[in-house]
Amino acid sequence: MTGAVPVKPTFAAAVVDPVAFAAELIRAPSVTPRAADALELVARRLEAAGYRVERLTFATGGVPIPNLYARIGTEGPNLCFAGHVDVVPEGDAALWAHGPFAGTIADGMLHGRGAVDMKGAVAAFLAAALKAGQPAKGSLSFLITGDEEGPALDGTVKVVEWLKAKGEKIDHCVLGEPTNPVALGDAFKVGRRGSLSGILTVTGMQGHVAYPHLADNPIPRLVALVAALTAAPLDEGSDFFPPSNLEVVSVDVGNPVFNLIPGKAEARFNVRFNDLFSLESLKAEIVRRLDSAGVAYALDFQPGASQSFLTAPGPFTELVADAVEAETGRRPEPSTSGGTSDARFIKDICPVVEFGLVGQTMHKVDEATPVADLEALTRIYERIIARYFAAFA
Amino acid sequence: MTGAVPVKPTFAAAVVDPVAFAAELIRAPSVTPRAADALELVARRLEAAGYRVERLTFATGGVPIPNLYARIGTEGPNLCFAGHVDVVPEGDAALWAHGPFAGTIADGMLHGRGAVDMKGAVAAFLAAALKAGQPAKGSLSFLITGDEEGPALDGTVKVVEWLKAKGEKIDHCVLGEPTNPVALGDAFKVGRRGSLSGILTVTGMQGHVAYPHLADNPIPRLVALVAALTAAPLDEGSDFFPPSNLEVVSVDVGNPVFNLIPGKAEARFNVRFNDLFSLESLKAEIVRRLDSAGVAYALDFQPGASQSFLTAPGPFTELVADAVEAETGRRPEPSTSGGTSDARFIKDICPVVEFGLVGQTMHKVDEATPVADLEALTRIYERIIARYFAAFA
Repeated sequence: MTGAVPVKPTFAAAVVDPVAFAAELIRAPSVTPRAADALELVARRLEAAGYRVERLTFATGGVPIPNLYARIGTEGPNLCFAGHVDVVPEGDAALWAHGPFAGTIADGMLHGRGAVDMKGAVAAFLAAALKAGQPAKGSLSFLITGDEEGPALDGTVKVVEWLKAKGEKIDHCVLGEPTNPVALGDAFKVGRRGSLSGILTVTGMQGHVAYPHLADNPIPRLVALVAALTAAPLDEGSDFFPPSNLEVVSVDVGNPVFNLIPGKAEARFNVRFNDLFSLESLKAEIVRRLDSAGVAYALDFQPGASQSFLTAPGPFTELVADAVEAETGRRPEPSTSGGTSDARFIKDICPVVEFGLVGQTMHKVDEATPVADLEALTRIYERIIARYFAAFA
Repeated sequence: MTGAVPVKPTFAAAVVDPVAFAAELIRAPSVTPRAADALELVARRLEAAGYRVERLTFATGGVPIPNLYARIGTEGPNLCFAGHVDVVPEGDAALWAHGPFAGTIADGMLHGRGAVDMKGAVAAFLAAALKAGQPAKGSLSFLITGDEEGPALDGTVKVVEWLKAKGEKIDHCVLGEPTNPVALGDAFKVGRRGSLSGILTVTGMQGHVAYPHLADNPIPRLVALVAALTAAPLDEGSDFFPPSNLEVVSVDVGNPVFNLIPGKAEARFNVRFNDLFSLESLKAEIVRRLDSAGVAYALDFQPGASQSFLTAPGPFTELVADAVEAETGRRPEPSTSGGTSDARFIKDICPVVEFGLVGQTMHKVDEATPVADLEALTRIYERIIARYFAAFA
């Protein structure tokens, strides 16, 4: 028995092949919000491996959305893997070389909707976690949602509320979104910009173009407001973030005729902003710029705005980068670029980093991942788990 | 027989009551392009009064459009009355107090579509002309179209071409459009501004708002172009015209989502311009302003542009103003304001002024004219005819 690892006979069979399990997940079509079958496959594997699985259904958006939180171990530190099994629609299934939900493995690639975003990463972490078993000290957990690609009202945001209400503590989190632009090892995400959208409306008075004194054209005022809004950059970027950026994404009047002065004009804008702004200071800057135009307007900030966040460099981000480098031979860039993810909810309860597959085919026809990437990602996750408990337990 | 006016027995019955005939015209519904019945009523009255009537049908727009040119007398000077018997649609007939095509006379008002614009004026001039009979020297003529309120492709513009081809000479023209803003005698029109419309397009590259470096937002460029276009007045007005005026009537992108940078943005504009610009010099000024913004754009001037024109003050404009003042006790303002009319075609062959009823109810539900106005307008036209042949024959 010298030097032998103690075996837990109850869960000896709880080993999964990440490629086979990713294919199995792809074969359970789970376009948001119909993710229940795919989520149940994950739940049963975790239960079979000794995890306590909480199935959490929320329906504030009107449709029941399945989620799960699963944990093995009772002590801290608790390392959580977060992800989603819902996928974006397949589009025209006839355009797919191997069918969107066939889970075909061919020419060294695993094909299908969700291969990259992100059933592949869910399978990889599950394989890594089950191989690791129950940590000698500490816990492993999973937060898997069925509502990441949809409205995200009844997904991770609600699970996080539930965790808080229950007093369940997660110490660190790895989110499995595809973070690599071209090759595994390119980048991992340590934060995200915030996002704020608004609608700007200028009201005038409709009238015939031949009698401009009897009308009041709102367009010159809208143009002046848009010019004031976009006159200067918001900032030059910060240590970990690119510059904040405001885009006017639409201007609209909808007047089809040339002889009518319109009564209303509207502009829509979105800002992706870094840690130099809070939501409040950004709103104040937008109002200051608009006010500088000296004309009347109405401004309607849209719901769903998110703050920027950063997981500060430290032992946790370093061990993730070390694990990636040990496997790929390349040290991944810490990145804060790109769109939003569920990390915006998780960052409220613990430090979170994101690392997953290569994103090039995500949301596209013929989404696919190299089998070798899936196997390498599984080994990276294994290294993260091992290094995490070595460092934090 | 001393002092007796010579009677032409053939046409002794050719007298019309302007109010009854206006009501008869209203009862022949003639929404553009279905003006044939109403026009035939006019043609028969003129034939009965000894006019030679040419029925002129044109169909370049795909639908046959009836027009007429009628003349009594063979010598010059030839005073022509121009007008139209087509009308704009009635809209919801149930909203009309007296029915749009009933021609009801009630409470001193003649009700119905076209009462003001401009079956009333056609009836008034016809009554005045028939009362005058054949001029002792000179000719009276009518140019009546069925395509003024529509595309105006097969109306007065084509009749004017026909007149030119035939060598038919008109010396002066009175057009019966409603020219009085509030009360009969307010104003007559001695010219019209020109009109030029254009569509300005800026092309960029669509992309996700989180990756602005991969996209190219056309909106800031469109805004700069619109600002350059509207930065300064075109002019301060001329002796007889108000300032030229450019209105941007629409700006459009049509992007409903906040996370997409659009690939195209468009602005539409219309200029009403005075005699300080020709169409060519105005187009050059617009291009100069757009070029000053220093960004790429596409510009598409729309068909149907019209030059400004002015019937210079002189004996003809004075006799019309005198006739109005003699009847109403007020000297009408010479005006060049408002939208376009068929005067833009007639001005190519002779001096033209416009005087008709009060325009307040035109194109509206419950279009109506006071019977007293119709009778006064008939007397004004009688005075114009008498003074015209006294001065020019």
